[in-house]
Amino acid sequence: MFHTEILVRFAVLYPAGIAYYPNLVNFLHEAFEDFFAGHVGRPYPEMFRDGIGTPTVRLEMEFLAPVRYGDRVRVGVTVERVGGTSVTVLYHGSVEGRPVFRARNTMVVVEMKDFRPVPIPGWLRERLIAGSDPEAPPGP
Amino acid sequence: MFHTEILVRFAVLYPAGIAYYPNLVNFLHEAFEDFFAGHVGRPYPEMFRDGIGTPTVRLEMEFLAPVRYGDRVRVGVTVERVGGTSVTVLYHGSVEGRPVFRARNTMVVVEMKDFRPVPIPGWLRERLIAGSDPEAPPGP
Amino acid sequence: MFHTEILVRFAVLYPAGIAYYPNLVNFLHEAFEDFFAGHVGRPYPEMFRDGIGTPTVRLEMEFLAPVRYGDRVRVGVTVERVGGTSVTVLYHGSVEGRPVFRARNTMVVVEMKDFRPVPIPGWLRERLIAGSDPEAPPGP
Amino acid sequence: MFHTEILVRFAVLYPAGIAYYPNLVNFLHEAFEDFFAGHVGRPYPEMFRDGIGTPTVRLEMEFLAPVRYGDRVRVGVTVERVGGTSVTVLYHGSVEGRPVFRARNTMVVVEMKDFRPVPIPGWLRERLIAGSDPEAPPGP
Repeated sequence: MFHTEILVRFAVLYPAGIAYYPNLVNFLHEAFEDFFAGHVGRPYPEMFRDGIGTPTVRLEMEFLAPVRYGDRVRVGVTVERVGGTSVTVLYHGSVEGRPVFRARNTMVVVEMKDFRPVPIPGWLRERLIAGSDPEAPPGP
Repeated sequence: MFHTEILVRFAVLYPAGIAYYPNLVNFLHEAFEDFFAGHVGRPYPEMFRDGIGTPTVRLEMEFLAPVRYGDRVRVGVTVERVGGTSVTVLYHGSVEGRPVFRARNTMVVVEMKDFRPVPIPGWLRERLIAGSDPEAPPGP
Repeated sequence: MFHTEILVRFAVLYPAGIAYYPNLVNFLHEAFEDFFAGHVGRPYPEMFRDGIGTPTVRLEMEFLAPVRYGDRVRVGVTVERVGGTSVTVLYHGSVEGRPVFRARNTMVVVEMKDFRPVPIPGWLRERLIAGSDPEAPPGP
Repeated sequence: MFHTEILVRFAVLYPAGIAYYPNLVNFLHEAFEDFFAGHVGRPYPEMFRDGIGTPTVRLEMEFLAPVRYGDRVRVGVTVERVGGTSVTVLYHGSVEGRPVFRARNTMVVVEMKDFRPVPIPGWLRERLIAGSDPEAPPGP
């Protein structure tokens, strides 16, 4: 399973001194960008500049434990399902081995110029399928 | 059903010129704050200063249509379930009558000083129960 | 002088329970959007969709007092100087009469398609000049 | 001069596909956190948990060129002046050698419990003074 690490910065905190949960939702996108750079083999910004985007259509997320300032959140990224124009990804966040969130995110692959779903390009489909892991922990 | 309206500001957009989805997750909290002021009858910031918070433990959200710069998102807030220390709230977002998102958010009521769940205070429980609506549209 | 009011939401706070200062910088843009709707007479999103933007090239800002959760920040917007392709705007933020920030922001009017400065359109120039106020308090 | 590098993530962009300027203001704090970890020798989160904060009281910033998605912004951090309870820091941002912003930020060292300025602790003062660089490029 692909893993990345995200440092909890000041800006994502709320008054309790822990991460505000919409900012943890943003962590999913950061982890997906890192998955592109580290696993897919093509930077997400490059694909995006070529006019392909991946807007989220459905999100399920569980927040299992507080995430604190300075924590390094290790995020596992696994592809659960690859459809014709959509992909469902599981994310598992942990801090020092302790689970802090898990999420299931379904995205549609679109052309940004008109937001129409398009068949997932072959180069991407292949790498998404290779990103599945039957031994990944269950999703939310 | 309680409704509020949130204006789509510049800061919530991403390059496609539509709202970035973690920022729409934040809209849920804004709508919940407005629900406190307009329906519960006590400002959320006041409760929060008294040491009571409502961290989210589970979120399901569907993004049904793009939300654009300058849109006024009408958000309906309905209480689906009131437990001993938790509450599940449904949110329905629409722009000019067109649904743009729907969400189910489960929060735990905690004392902020140690993040321990506490029984929902009577004044709040009563208003949460009054915030349910059997005719609300279905959740995600 | 044009005034607007911005409610301090949960998302802009940091652990001290007060607004994190980059989020107050974003308040300047929100106030400028309101200035367009309320004083210029044309919504900023409409101008933006027509391909005109106003990126900031210089900012000076003083943070005079903490801004707290639930505060309603009254923001005064005054045009200090209108150049050929740029405009300098002063912002004065206060909470219940107590000043909390003041800022001077210079923006360049550009065509978004290539980011080139363009002469300020006549309809906008006229309203910007009308937005000056010789009796405005001093900037930072 | 201490340097760090910040990757431009999706969330900081606005519709033109470049970084929204309040998010670049946040980059200053991220660079200051890295300055603590890499130069001061004590993580900022640790100091913060001990009750010491550094709210900004004055900011000057110039935005010299667009910052794009996927850019790695190299940020130089130099201490310009150390006062009794305050410190002024210069930041120089560049992408592939091309300057993109420069900023001067004055912070006050406070006890977070009551926001009162306190004399800068000796261990911090020494490292701040060591963080000055007479050959740093000029500020804004």
